Amino acid sequence: MRNLRLKLMYDGAAYHGWQVQDNAVTVQGKVEKAVAEIFGGHHTVYGCSRTDAGVHANEYYCNFHTGKEISCDTVVRALNAKLPFDIAVLECKEKENGFHSRFDCVSKEYIYKIWNREIRNPFLINRAYQYKYKLDEKMLNEAASAFVGTFDYRGFCSSGSSVADTVRTVKKASVERQGDLVIFRVEADGFLYNMVRIMTGTLINISQGKIKKESLRDIILSGSREAAGVTAPPQGLYLNKVRYKEGQE
Amino acid sequence: MRNLRLKLMYDGAAYHGWQVQDNAVTVQGKVEKAVAEIFGGHHTVYGCSRTDAGVHANEYYCNFHTGKEISCDTVVRALNAKLPFDIAVLECKEKENGFHSRFDCVSKEYIYKIWNREIRNPFLINRAYQYKYKLDEKMLNEAASAFVGTFDYRGFCSSGSSVADTVRTVKKASVERQGDLVIFRVEADGFLYNMVRIMTGTLINISQGKIKKESLRDIILSGSREAAGVTAPPQGLYLNKVRYKEGQE
Repeated sequence: MRNLRLKLMYDGAAYHGWQVQDNAVTVQGKVEKAVAEIFGGHHTVYGCSRTDAGVHANEYYCNFHTGKEISCDTVVRALNAKLPFDIAVLECKEKENGFHSRFDCVSKEYIYKIWNREIRNPFLINRAYQYKYKLDEKMLNEAASAFVGTFDYRGFCSSGSSVADTVRTVKKASVERQGDLVIFRVEADGFLYNMVRIMTGTLINISQGKIKKESLRDIILSGSREAAGVTAPPQGLYLNKVRYKEGQE
Repeated sequence: MRNLRLKLMYDGAAYHGWQVQDNAVTVQGKVEKAVAEIFGGHHTVYGCSRTDAGVHANEYYCNFHTGKEISCDTVVRALNAKLPFDIAVLECKEKENGFHSRFDCVSKEYIYKIWNREIRNPFLINRAYQYKYKLDEKMLNEAASAFVGTFDYRGFCSSGSSVADTVRTVKKASVERQGDLVIFRVEADGFLYNMVRIMTGTLINISQGKIKKESLRDIILSGSREAAGVTAPPQGLYLNKVRYKEGQE
């Protein structure tokens, strides 16, 4: 059996996230349908992450097993012809049999885009969260440094998650401004359910004075969902980079 | 009577261009509907340009006359609340009575975005034209310099136009690459019907070797629509900047 890994890019606006669900249109569902059309019959496609409804991906990896000898270049072209326009296959690579898109991932980077202007941007509807009060990106960049380190992040996890181990190592966290866009960027070995959206909401609450910048580390250590900030909406969130073990890129 | 000028930004994907037409959804129609809701009754809104179906605007000006004393700040807020999400009012300014968005304009800049990669970009569907063969942006930038000057541009005008004077002065014309995006930028005192799209199509025909780079000036001078290139599709085109006389900005 061959183990094919796909690199995707998708606009998540029209989807109920990655994972197949009953009565909902999902990215996994669309990819499995296209794979079935090319390779014949159902193939489970394993994703690197369960993105939420409305969340986007500049880079997303998934893999599936097949006995069919279709070249990787042809797989890319054939899948792109079958997939809807808002999902693109950027690459197909043959991996060793044990490779798994999710379990072999060593780190992920998300970005969260905030359109920081009172007037909306027609080109960023569903692609950024509009927040009209001026954000101080330098102050928020300092605040975000409190996220860096290995912590039990259970306070930054929405209920409904059944993950046993809530310790995560955040490698980088920063806030920058590009004109009227404010971008929160965070890299970690893994993320809990809604973790980036709660981090973003907490930064917004800091800019509102509802949470003190100096108390952010204590809030993380408290493990309390109530102490952390609101959950920012999904449309600003992008899975941006996914890193695999050396030799697995 | 007050003469109010609006600065708009819009994603043109859902519209049959600017101008009101029977049985078609247009930007002018949406703006006039919003103005009627705020100011009461029909007000003709004069636009700076007739953009085609599917064409976008990063900057677009229009004006209308009213006797109502509503502050410009309130006009911006109220219109944005009434308009669909893909049209935004960025600014409202009170102008002298004789001001007209179209006739007082001294130059316009358009950009045309080409997604120059075999694989589509899910975030640029309807927002760029995908052309998969590698474009040589340096060569095309040199070629585009032939557009600069005052010429009778009737060969770069689609039939159906009834403009008598087809002489236009192109002030700047350039091609640059930003990653996989190739951008054609052109500024002129005015543009004929489909002029930028035919210029873009001609540049693509030059890159295909169907038209010789060295013959572009002669093609312009020939005034022949057949000699010029194809009409590039609308979705890559953006009205980018509009300049008014000094004191009219």
